[in-house]
Parts: sequence; C-alpha cells; structure tokens
Amino acid sequence: MKENNFVKAKIITIGDELLLGQVVNTNASWLGEQLNLNGFQLVSVLTIGDGEKDILDALNACSDVDIVFITGGLGPTADDITKPTLCKYFDTEMVLNEDALENINEIFRLRGYQMSERNRLQAFIPKSCTYIPNRFGTAPCMWFEKENTVYISMPGVPFEMKSIFKTELVERLKNHFKPTPYGRRVIMTTGIGESFLADKIKDWEESLPEFMSLAYLPQYGMVRLRIDARHEDECFMQKSLDCEVEKLKKIIPDNIFACDDKPISEVVVEMLKERKQTLATAESCTGGSIAKMITAIPGCSAIFKGSVVSYATEVKENILKVNHNDVERHTVVSREVAEQMAVGAREIMNVDYALATTGIAGPDGGSEENPVGTVWIALATAKGVVSKRYNFDKDRNNNIERSCITALEMLRQEMLN
Amino acid sequence: MKENNFVKAKIITIGDELLLGQVVNTNASWLGEQLNLNGFQLVSVLTIGDGEKDILDALNACSDVDIVFITGGLGPTADDITKPTLCKYFDTEMVLNEDALENINEIFRLRGYQMSERNRLQAFIPKSCTYIPNRFGTAPCMWFEKENTVYISMPGVPFEMKSIFKTELVERLKNHFKPTPYGRRVIMTTGIGESFLADKIKDWEESLPEFMSLAYLPQYGMVRLRIDARHEDECFMQKSLDCEVEKLKKIIPDNIFACDDKPISEVVVEMLKERKQTLATAESCTGGSIAKMITAIPGCSAIFKGSVVSYATEVKENILKVNHNDVERHTVVSREVAEQMAVGAREIMNVDYALATTGIAGPDGGSEENPVGTVWIALATAKGVVSKRYNFDKDRNNNIERSCITALEMLRQEMLN
Repeated sequence: MKENNFVKAKIITIGDELLLGQVVNTNASWLGEQLNLNGFQLVSVLTIGDGEKDILDALNACSDVDIVFITGGLGPTADDITKPTLCKYFDTEMVLNEDALENINEIFRLRGYQMSERNRLQAFIPKSCTYIPNRFGTAPCMWFEKENTVYISMPGVPFEMKSIFKTELVERLKNHFKPTPYGRRVIMTTGIGESFLADKIKDWEESLPEFMSLAYLPQYGMVRLRIDARHEDECFMQKSLDCEVEKLKKIIPDNIFACDDKPISEVVVEMLKERKQTLATAESCTGGSIAKMITAIPGCSAIFKGSVVSYATEVKENILKVNHNDVERHTVVSREVAEQMAVGAREIMNVDYALATTGIAGPDGGSEENPVGTVWIALATAKGVVSKRYNFDKDRNNNIERSCITALEMLRQEMLN
Repeated sequence: MKENNFVKAKIITIGDELLLGQVVNTNASWLGEQLNLNGFQLVSVLTIGDGEKDILDALNACSDVDIVFITGGLGPTADDITKPTLCKYFDTEMVLNEDALENINEIFRLRGYQMSERNRLQAFIPKSCTYIPNRFGTAPCMWFEKENTVYISMPGVPFEMKSIFKTELVERLKNHFKPTPYGRRVIMTTGIGESFLADKIKDWEESLPEFMSLAYLPQYGMVRLRIDARHEDECFMQKSLDCEVEKLKKIIPDNIFACDDKPISEVVVEMLKERKQTLATAESCTGGSIAKMITAIPGCSAIFKGSVVSYATEVKENILKVNHNDVERHTVVSREVAEQMAVGAREIMNVDYALATTGIAGPDGGSEENPVGTVWIALATAKGVVSKRYNFDKDRNNNIERSCITALEMLRQEMLN
C-alpha cells in the first residue's frame, strides 16, 4: 500500500458515448459506492474516448494508486479497442483463452443462437492477464499486475460489470489488499428540511468520534444522513456506529423512516408484510409510478394486489366508480375525485389500504385554480379515507416523483399511528 | 486551437459525493452532449474529491485543451474549496464583486429571505476572472484565461449549471473559438443483436465518408446507432448525413423504429396520436412500468387511457375477467392468461389496442416449466389477439425493462402492418 493505509483506486471509463453525453456514467458511481463499502478509497474517475493514445496516457498516470478499474471498450465491434491497447501497455500479445471461449459457447448455447466469428474473437485476450469469468456476457474480464498496481479491465455493460464485481472480484480484491475495515450507516429522514435537521442534531454531530464523518444528502422530499467510519478494529467500529444511530433515533424519532439506505417503497412493503396487510393504488398523474416502485421490490406480491392507472376520466368512472357528477362539479383534480379513486380501488381490489393520486404533472394542463404541480393524494383504509392537496413543481418528472414519495409516506404515517 | 482544428474541452467535476457513489455525475454527460452539439469536442471528464492538491494537479494537466470546465465546490459551506484553489492556481486574490453581490441580493429579495453572512461571502471571487452571471443561484460562474486556454468554473447544482451554460456561455464560447460545425444522427434499432447488426450493415459502415464515424450503443432489447460528423461546410454535412440514414433504412427497414434519439414509448405515442387510436395495458410482471414509460411522455393523455396492474390473480380474474379455470389449468404465466388479460383490458377500457404482460420477473417464483425470465406478452386489437412467449434473463430489472420494450415493439410492428 502507498502513501497512507488506505487502498486507493482509480476508475478509467472508456467510451465515446460517455463524452458525447449519450450515456450517463452510472458505472462509476456504482463502483465508487461498492469500493467504499468494502474499505477501498476511490480517488478519481477519468472518462476518455475510444482512442489508443488517450487510453495509454491514462494508464501511464496510474502508478500512484493500488487498483485501476478500466470499464468499457470490450464489445465485438471495431470501435472497441481496449484489448489491443492493453496488449500494448502490458507489452504482451493476444492469445485464445479456452475458458473465455467455453464461456461464450455456453452463453450462445443457452440463448439458442449460433455463435458468429466476431464473438469467437472475444475469446482472445492478452497473454499476461488472468482471465476472470463473465457469466453474464461474451466480453471477458481481465486482471493485470504491474509494479504493485492491479489493473482490472471490465465490460462496460452495467449489468455485466456489477455482476462480475460482486461474484468474482470483491473477495479477490479483499484477499489481495486487506483494506482497513470500513463501516457505514445511512439514516433516511423525511418531514424536515436540511438546515433545520442540521440545527436539531448539531450537538450529536459534534460529539461523533474522530474516525467517523457525517454527510447530508438531500433528495426529493427527504434527507439521507450518511455516517462513514474506518477503523482497524472492525467489531468496535460497527458497535460504535450502532451506538451513534441509537442516539440519533432518540433525537429525531418521528423523522427517521429507515436506518438503512433503502427507498420508502421498500420500508412500506416490509411494514405491510409484517402486518399481513395488502395495498393497491389508483393512479392518475403518477401514471403507474407508485406501482412500479412497489413492484421493483422482490417479494412484493405478498402485499401488493395491483393498481388501476386511470389516466382517462372514463376509466376513473367505469372501473374505480368515481361519481360522474363529482367530476363535472369539482374537476378530476379535486378532493372528491382523489378520495373516490382511493375508496374505489380499495373495494374492487379488496385490500386494506389504497392510495390514489390525481393532479397536473405538466408541462401543460394547468389552470388558475389548479396550476401545474397541483396534486391530490388520498388514502383509503378500513377507517375511512383521508386526503391532502399538494403544490409541487413546474417539472413533470419532479412532480411525479414527489407525488409517489409523499403518497408512500402518507401510508407509512398511517401505519405508525 | 491546438493539435488539430477541433476545439477540445475537458471537464473537471469536484465533489467527494461523486466518488462515494452517492450522486451520479449527470452534469458531465449533459455538458458533453451540449458541447458536442455545438461543435466542441469533449476529450475527457475527470472526477476528483474536494482536496486542494487534487484540484491543482488536475488544473496543471489541462494545457493540452482549449476549454476547461470546472463544476462544483462553490457552495457556502467549508468543504467547498474551489474558489481559494482557483485563486492559488491563477495567482490572484479574492475581491468583492459588486455584480455578484447584487445578484445574491436579488435572489434573496425574490425568495423573501434574509441574506446571511455566509451568502455574502459568495460574492467574493478571484480578481483576475470575468464574472459570468448566475441568475439561478447564489454561487458565481467565473471565466479565466491562461495561455490560450479558457477555464470556466461553474456551480455543481445541475439546474444552475445547465441554465448558465445555455443562457450565458454557449454563444460566448462559439464567438471565442468558432468551432467546426458538427452533425449527428441517431438511429434506434430493435429485434437484432449488436453483432448480427454489425454484420448486416458492414458494407454500408465501411463506405461512410471520412468525416463521419459510427458507434453502436446497445441497451436492453435494442441497439442505438450514432453517426457523428464534422465538416467545415455545414449544409453539405447535414445533407450527407441524411443521405446515409436513407441508405441505412433500405438495409434494415424492419429494425429501425426511430431516426431520432427517442425512446420507443415516444414513437408509439406519436404513431397512436397520428392514427387517432388509443391504448391501455394490463400488466402483471411489468407492474406498471409500461404505463410509467407511456405517461412519462407529455401529452400522452390523448392516446393512453390507463392500465390495470393486476399483480394478484384475483385482480386478473375480477377486473380483467380472466377465466378462473384457465388460471388453474395453465397457471398465470401462460398464453391463455396473457391473451385474456389483453382482451379484458381492451374491453373494459374501451381502447383500440391493449398490451398485456405476465411472467416471472424473479429473483424467486421460477419453476422448471416457467423459469425466471419467462414472460408472455399479448396484444389485443380489433382483429383479435396475438401473443408470444419470451425467455429473458435472471435479473429482475432486466426482465421488467425488456418486457416493456418488447411489448411496445409488438404494438409498433402491428401498427406498421
């Protein structure tokens, strides 16, 4: 290890598409988080195009770190030049790797396709590297070592990169470098703005031990608090972190909805599972987004029965049994319609809780009475129905996102009471 | 201009949160696209933490480009050290800038808040820079020049960065550098894998003029093709690009769903609008994701009536009128259930087209007959109902995403016939 006792990593992401703005570099942030959680420290991310000189320059500037991840440029087409460039950098030649070939064969066998010559070429890799299996695609993963630095070349397809990192790389890297144990707690808060929260927890924050640090991460309708810690004594560190979380819980009990970095949809699914209760939604302006958030959680079928996305008024009336006269009298963006949607969804889907949304997501459709960003959210339960009007934003996506989170928080609060 | 006649740019994004993976670097991809579309060439993006040495090292490695964008680290808190570091690098001192102060005053006046001392400090900027107004926030934008390279320091808040770039910077940069005109076409293809596509269009690709380049951008169930061109004669370049797209259309007519960079959901919404026809969905394994994709498109209400997200079997039976005996006999992941869902949705929501999905998204729930990744997709039309079985993947998200795209493509093909 170099400089201090942290194992330092760099990421080099290769791909013209990243520089042209056609693709957002989500690989780097995902890998940054995973490295951090496993005790490695990411010190920089460099994105460059598919050009040999740029790749070589980047590799030449890596001797100050312990690990270099190189993602992308491994596809079967002509613009993918990572492999020949690595050959040049490590002064080696391309050879057919039998394991890589077998892997590609296996993938084509499973998919029932014929393998092309292009794909066979993917089994050629630089001679001096260790082949790391990629069970999820035809591009190889390669491990090089040079003067105490490990270089790992990975496919750029996010799903493949992530799967290889988790199944093949993380343990190998830990065994190789034995990094200082790292710990993290993420506390999800809602219902309090960043500066008010900071004032409220100031004394606690100032009393945190030296080896911990706190970060505020505000998001749509919530603030995430992240405590990071590094300490040689892992057991002591973990216990200290738990202890600080317990203290914090006592200071802001109502604002914490999770002591894990998880979405509110997951918290709601867990609470419903525990209570053996069920949920349905009736969505107009959110257009299925709440259902999507819930159904993204594996195992949600135990509690989620379904949703009626009632974008058209006739669907609200015909399926959810919203009263036609109320629509005429109050318009579809009204307390009456929101509440009848929730009650209707609860009845026809036979659930304990039903959430409903109706509003103007924008950019068009606003009126003086109901400008863009006006959203009614209703919750029907065995006790009856409650609803609330919100004025969010001018931005369509923002409105949809905030409506979803606010609806789920309404349900969470109801279950707490 | 240096090296060749392209105006080259670099982005340095500053922020520990980007390295810890808590925030995805969307600024870089947005800026990359804007630069490119305006004739500048982004050659690299470097992400580093809030550390003086790292920032200085990064600035010292910029003399090979014409423009350097520095985003982030301009907030009012102590961890934001970009300004003092720029002072050091440009060997200058901080002075109060009256325009910056007036701008901050104005923002506080509009918001009706009292200005704090912290915010007043934001009006101090390095003496040697040109102040570029930021009408959208309290952090300044600063323009430096040193040995033919322009350095622009911008706030990291995406909305502010984007607004400043569009309103204050792009014209200034074009006047300063007069870059070579740039053109781009994006062709969206589906129904053919990357290597098969590459084989099919090989001759066309090889015959592209020198000033064009082609890139393959594979995604769930589709491949985007991007043609980039740079040429002094803008009119000639644009016509040549159109000409190449026309040639390509003749080679793979069935696989192209758009000659614009837009999602298939948008293409389907446009086609339906033009035909004055309507759509509804009945979603089991996709859990509302198709509805969400459709309702993300502004103006979709003209063609989209709604969705029944029938996660529970009873919702399939009660609302969509799926036959209970067929569920018992064939299970919910079957041709019979998919087709009845589509037909039911078409009838109860009174639409021209209804898409239905039922499958095993995973990670659990697979069987020998229907392993994880098995999905039935059905489309009901005035002519009847068609359906097809797919075997996607092991990954839940991947299965959901591919099911959505495949369903929308099924509808698109139906409308083409």
